[in-house]
Amino acid sequence: MSQAADGRYELYYWPSIQGRGEFVRLALEDAGANYVDVARLPEDQGGGVRAIMSLLKSEELEALPFAPPLLKSEGRVFAQSPLILHYLGPRLGLVPNDEQSRLYAHQLFLTVADFLVEVHDTHHPIGVALYYEDQKPEALRRSEIFVKQRLPKFLGYFERALEKGGGHALNGGFSYVDLALFQVMAGLGYAFPKALARVSGHYPRLVALREEVAARPRIAAYLASDRRLPFNEHGLFRHYPELDLG
Amino acid sequence: MSQAADGRYELYYWPSIQGRGEFVRLALEDAGANYVDVARLPEDQGGGVRAIMSLLKSEELEALPFAPPLLKSEGRVFAQSPLILHYLGPRLGLVPNDEQSRLYAHQLFLTVADFLVEVHDTHHPIGVALYYEDQKPEALRRSEIFVKQRLPKFLGYFERALEKGGGHALNGGFSYVDLALFQVMAGLGYAFPKALARVSGHYPRLVALREEVAARPRIAAYLASDRRLPFNEHGLFRHYPELDLG
Repeated sequence: MSQAADGRYELYYWPSIQGRGEFVRLALEDAGANYVDVARLPEDQGGGVRAIMSLLKSEELEALPFAPPLLKSEGRVFAQSPLILHYLGPRLGLVPNDEQSRLYAHQLFLTVADFLVEVHDTHHPIGVALYYEDQKPEALRRSEIFVKQRLPKFLGYFERALEKGGGHALNGGFSYVDLALFQVMAGLGYAFPKALARVSGHYPRLVALREEVAARPRIAAYLASDRRLPFNEHGLFRHYPELDLG
Repeated sequence: MSQAADGRYELYYWPSIQGRGEFVRLALEDAGANYVDVARLPEDQGGGVRAIMSLLKSEELEALPFAPPLLKSEGRVFAQSPLILHYLGPRLGLVPNDEQSRLYAHQLFLTVADFLVEVHDTHHPIGVALYYEDQKPEALRRSEIFVKQRLPKFLGYFERALEKGGGHALNGGFSYVDLALFQVMAGLGYAFPKALARVSGHYPRLVALREEVAARPRIAAYLASDRRLPFNEHGLFRHYPELDLG
């Protein structure tokens, strides 16, 4: 893909998983933004994993990226999903337009990102380069602690944030953090359906927010489209029934 | 402690470890900032862990924090070390004063923060609430992969960033990211001395930066003072010889 000279955003993320890129996709979709999910284009149209690798290795970038997701905007390339959403938030109208709200949204999203590492490590507690099957006893042990201790700790925090914000993460209105909390609940519902069902009565605001977000017209259209990749066992949220210690 | 009405910064972080709070301490120290490390004061002067807990549970905060470090500044409380340093950077003169540099510094620091999770999980791959001794076989397995794969991947990235920046993380000059990379190298030198010695020839700029930062007058004074807590086996970087697979 050539430079987005027309104000279009270009997202570079693994084309076969939701992963961390999904938090960016949801924001772009909810805002109805003009964007291309570059790596989902065919290789002969400049897409595929090759497009990500080529951008990662580019010698021309002013800011050296470590890993996808990458966002190209106004000729610059940003990495790190928390930073990308901090950058996009005001541009997409997905955060109230004052510094205090922006920083609080960022703080909440950083905690979502911390939680995602813990979700990921339930199936990969030993190493990202190993298969799940090669770290299964460790994954079982970690998942037990995740379900009993970490899941309630994080969901309890997010629920208190929603209580403080009157049903949304920020008091000032809907934000990309609400989209992120939707994705967290959707992902947990896929990966840990029994464990989530057992505790979700404690998190009525998270449950309600998940439904509210799913019903937003642009999100509903996105979720029904083939742009929304299905959850699967290559991403962040994976359903291994033996880890779902309900 | 009462409100910092005099422009003083208040840091709230565990008083017995360097941990993630150390990245904030180094920035405040290097800038010669007026700050109080609140929890290191005696309890009868408003300090101790009790001060952290009381702030974490405060009903008056506009922005709900999840965990320390917390920074109180101008009556507001910020959590998440990447956000705290993004906020402090320009105020302390520890990042070039343009949006592009600020965002790149933030992007680099977010990747440092990701690396710190992996460092931590070498000794706690199963659960933070368990003792190291209760997850030792898993820690050995994770550390082997850390030393062989993850350490070179992250250090290689940081080294390339220093190459691009002409010896510092940002081309525009010294920044809090340089302080963070010093701390990463110091921590690895404590926790994994053999593994680091074996590979450090590949990272001449990181080695040089560590020495340069240690020699900065305010940092040298800090490191020699009792304000600098020693590394120990309660923090992020822990020296367990059996994990140091040189």
